[in-house]
Amino acid sequence: VSLIRKSVFGSGVLASALGAVLFSSVSGAQTSNVTLYGRVDLNYTKLSGDPLQMTQTSSSRWGLRGSESLGGGWNAIFTLESGINADTGSVSGNLFGRESWLGVSNRNFGTLRLGRSLVPSQRVASNYDPHGTDGIGSLGSGGLMITHAALTRFNNGIYYETPSMGGFTVFAAHQLDEVKTDTTDESVSSVRLRFQTGGFDASVAYGEVNSRDKVVSLGLAYDFKSIKPMMQFHDGKRNGDDRQHWLVGFTAPVGAGELRAAYSAQNDKSPKNADRKLFAIGYDYSLSKRTIVYGTLASDRRGLNTTAAVHKRGFELGMRHLF
Amino acid sequence: VSLIRKSVFGSGVLASALGAVLFSSVSGAQTSNVTLYGRVDLNYTKLSGDPLQMTQTSSSRWGLRGSESLGGGWNAIFTLESGINADTGSVSGNLFGRESWLGVSNRNFGTLRLGRSLVPSQRVASNYDPHGTDGIGSLGSGGLMITHAALTRFNNGIYYETPSMGGFTVFAAHQLDEVKTDTTDESVSSVRLRFQTGGFDASVAYGEVNSRDKVVSLGLAYDFKSIKPMMQFHDGKRNGDDRQHWLVGFTAPVGAGELRAAYSAQNDKSPKNADRKLFAIGYDYSLSKRTIVYGTLASDRRGLNTTAAVHKRGFELGMRHLF
Amino acid sequence: VSLIRKSVFGSGVLASALGAVLFSSVSGAQTSNVTLYGRVDLNYTKLSGDPLQMTQTSSSRWGLRGSESLGGGWNAIFTLESGINADTGSVSGNLFGRESWLGVSNRNFGTLRLGRSLVPSQRVASNYDPHGTDGIGSLGSGGLMITHAALTRFNNGIYYETPSMGGFTVFAAHQLDEVKTDTTDESVSSVRLRFQTGGFDASVAYGEVNSRDKVVSLGLAYDFKSIKPMMQFHDGKRNGDDRQHWLVGFTAPVGAGELRAAYSAQNDKSPKNADRKLFAIGYDYSLSKRTIVYGTLASDRRGLNTTAAVHKRGFELGMRHLF
Repeated sequence: VSLIRKSVFGSGVLASALGAVLFSSVSGAQTSNVTLYGRVDLNYTKLSGDPLQMTQTSSSRWGLRGSESLGGGWNAIFTLESGINADTGSVSGNLFGRESWLGVSNRNFGTLRLGRSLVPSQRVASNYDPHGTDGIGSLGSGGLMITHAALTRFNNGIYYETPSMGGFTVFAAHQLDEVKTDTTDESVSSVRLRFQTGGFDASVAYGEVNSRDKVVSLGLAYDFKSIKPMMQFHDGKRNGDDRQHWLVGFTAPVGAGELRAAYSAQNDKSPKNADRKLFAIGYDYSLSKRTIVYGTLASDRRGLNTTAAVHKRGFELGMRHLF
Repeated sequence: VSLIRKSVFGSGVLASALGAVLFSSVSGAQTSNVTLYGRVDLNYTKLSGDPLQMTQTSSSRWGLRGSESLGGGWNAIFTLESGINADTGSVSGNLFGRESWLGVSNRNFGTLRLGRSLVPSQRVASNYDPHGTDGIGSLGSGGLMITHAALTRFNNGIYYETPSMGGFTVFAAHQLDEVKTDTTDESVSSVRLRFQTGGFDASVAYGEVNSRDKVVSLGLAYDFKSIKPMMQFHDGKRNGDDRQHWLVGFTAPVGAGELRAAYSAQNDKSPKNADRKLFAIGYDYSLSKRTIVYGTLASDRRGLNTTAAVHKRGFELGMRHLF
Repeated sequence: VSLIRKSVFGSGVLASALGAVLFSSVSGAQTSNVTLYGRVDLNYTKLSGDPLQMTQTSSSRWGLRGSESLGGGWNAIFTLESGINADTGSVSGNLFGRESWLGVSNRNFGTLRLGRSLVPSQRVASNYDPHGTDGIGSLGSGGLMITHAALTRFNNGIYYETPSMGGFTVFAAHQLDEVKTDTTDESVSSVRLRFQTGGFDASVAYGEVNSRDKVVSLGLAYDFKSIKPMMQFHDGKRNGDDRQHWLVGFTAPVGAGELRAAYSAQNDKSPKNADRKLFAIGYDYSLSKRTIVYGTLASDRRGLNTTAAVHKRGFELGMRHLF
C-alpha cells in the first residue's frame, strides 16, 4: 500500500528524477502499460460548387489505451483519444474529446465506464452505415444526432455494456446534468439492444434529452460473406426539429478491397421541410494490413422542397493509415 | 558531432522519410528513450447544495519522461506532463502545464532543472496532506498558495535540489520575472529544507513573490508503519490577504488499502475574516498494483464569520488508474 | 478485408475493450507501429535592452511517426509533430502544427505526402544556416519567409520529393487555396532543386504566393570535414515588402563539439528601408549522443537607416536533449 501511495502522490522531485534514472532500463516494460495508437486519414474532396479541398473521410486521431488485470476475470481499462484534422494539424474539439474514460470489464459481468465516450444511439448510426459516419458518402451520426438529440458523445457519462447473453447485448449510458442552466451537459440517456448470431446483426436504440427530445433507432445487417447488406432508420425530435432518417446499403469484398454503397435520406417533418437524399458508392483498396487508399462518388440532393435546394455531385480520393 | 548536428537540424524530408523507413526496425529501441505514463482519475462528488458531479480527486494526466546517461554519474533528465479533466477530455491549462522541464542530475551533486515544475513551498503542502492536495478532503495547495503566493508552479523557473546530506536535502527554485508589467511571471523564489531519517520526515519552506508577498511553511510526519501521523502549517500574505493554514491528520494501512483522515483549517486575518474548517476521512482500496477505488467523506465549513458562511457535507466515490 | 474494415470502423465498445484486454500482451508489439520522439530545448537569453529570458534556440517538440512496408519497395509513412514552448509548457500553434502528414515513399520513385509540412523554399534557409533558423544567431526562415512569402509551412499541402538522380533531387510542394477570401490558405507553390556529391551541397529554390509574391533562394555548402563553409541568398517580394537576405558562415568540429558562426544581412528595398545586420558565433558541446549544451554570442543591428535603429548585443546559454 505504501508503494502505491508513493506512486500515487509522489514524494519529491529528486525521488522522481532518481526513479526515472534508476528504472530507465525498464522503461520499455513500463511502456507496455499503455498502447499508443491512432490513424491518419487525408483526402481530396470536390463537390460541385465547392472548391477542391483537402480533408478526411474518417477522423484522424491518436490515443492512449491500456488495461490491467485485477484478478477474478476483471480488468481495469481506460482510453484517452484525441481527434485531429490532419490537413492542418489542429485538434478537433477538446484534446481527448473523442474518448476519455476509465472503467472495469469482466467477461461475465460486462463493462462499466465513466467519462466521455460514444453513445448507444450513435452506435446504430455507425454500425450499419457502409460509409461509416463521415465523409461525403454518409448523412452521418453528426447530421442526425447532433441536430436531433445531442447523442453522439457525452461528457460526465456513465456507460454499461452487458456481455453477450445468447447473442443479446444491452448498452446503456447516461449523462449527468451538472449545470442545470446550460445546454452542454443536459440530462441525456440512451440504451441499445443488439442481437447478433452468425452473420445476423440487429439493433434497436432509444435516446432522450431532458425527457423532451427523443430519437428511436433501428439497424439491421446480414453478412452473406460475398455481400453484407445493411439498413438503418431513425426517427427523432430535437429543439423543434422533427426528422426521419433511413439508409439502405451494402459492403462487399471485391478484389483486394471492399466495395461500399448506400442510399440514404432525411425526411424533415418540421415547417422547414428540408429533405435530403444521398447516394454514394466507394471502394477501399488495401495496400497492406494497416493502409488503404479509397475513393467515393456521391450524389447529394440537399434542402429538397426549399428554395435553397442544391444538387451536389462529387468525389473524395484519399488514403488512411492505422498505427 | 556531425551525426548530432544532422539529427538536431535535419537534412531534408527524404532523409527523414528514409530514416523512418530504414530504422523502423529499431523504433522499439528508440521508444525506450522516452517513457509514456499517466493517470486517469474519475469520481462522483456530491456536496450539500451542489448537484452530483463527475470530477476527479487527483489530477488526471499523461506525460513523457526520459533520462540519458552522460557518464560520470550524470544523467540528462526531462519531463513533459499534461493535466487533463477526464470527465470531458479537456486539457487543464497549457498542454504541458503540469511539468515541462529539462535538467541534469547526479547522485553526488543533486538535480538542476529549467522550465516549469512544482515549487518547494508547494511540496510541503502536498507531502504532509493525507488527502494529497486535491478533492473534497484537502484545502489544497491551490487554496493556500495561489491566493497567498502564486507558489504552486513556475514558468521560466530554475530548480536545484541537493542530494541527501545526512538526511538533509535543500530544494531551491526561482522564477524569472520576464515581463515586469504583468503578473504571470513575477519574481518568485522558494526554498525548502527537509530532514528525513527512518520514519521521520520534517520540512520548513519559505516562498516570496516580488519581495513583498511571503509564505512560511512547516511540515512534519512520522511513519510508525501501523500509522503515519502528519501535520503542516503555513502562514502567508498575498495581495492584501493574510492567512494561516494548518492541518493534522494521518494515513494508516488497513486491509488491502489505506485509511486517510485530516482536520484542516484556514484562519483569515484580513478584514474578510473568511475562516474555513474541514474534516475529511477516506479510504483507498487497492484493486491491483496500479488501480484503486476510493471514497471520502467531508464536512467543510466555509466562510466562517461571514454572512456567506456555509456548511457543506458530502462524499466523493471514484477510481484511479496509473499507467 | 473484413479484418481491416473492423479495425477501421470499429464494432462496439465491448469489442474494443475486450480487444484491449485480450491483446494487451502484444501492446509492446503494437507500440512498434509508431515511434514517439521529441526534443526539449531551454536556454537563458539576454539581449541588450531586454530582460533576461528563458526561451529556446531550436523548437522544443514531441511527435509520433511511423512507417509500414507496402511491398515492392513502397512504404506508407506519417508524422504528427507538435511544437512546444518548454519554458511554460504551452503549445506553439496548432497541436501538430509542425508536421501533420501521410504519404508513401519508394527508394526508386521518391516520396509523396499530403498534409502540413515544411516548404521547399524554407529548406534552403534551414540547410545552409550554421545556427539553424531559430535563436539569436539566425535571421531565420521566420524573418525571411513569413514576411516575404508565407513559405515556412503549408496547410492542405501536397509534397513530392524525388530520389537522388546522380546527386540531384527535386522537391516540389503546393498548397491548395481552399477559401478564396482569406489569407491563411492562399495558393502557394514552391520547388527546390538540390545537388549533392561528396561534400558539395547546392540548392536553388523558387516560391510564389497567389502568382504575385515571389522569392528566389540559393544555398551552397562544402564539407571539408575540418570546416564546412556555407552561404545562402534570398530575394523576394511580399505584400509590398521587397527584401534581399544573405548569409555566409561555417560550422567546424572542435573538441567534443561544433563551432558555428555566420554573418547575415537583410537588405530592405522598400520605402521602409529597414536593413538588418547580424553576426553570431556559437558552440555546441556534446554531453552525450542525445544531449548538448550550447552558447551563442550575437551582435544584431536592426532597423538600420531608420530612426528605430538599435544595436542589440547578447548571448544565449542553454541545453538541448533529443528523445
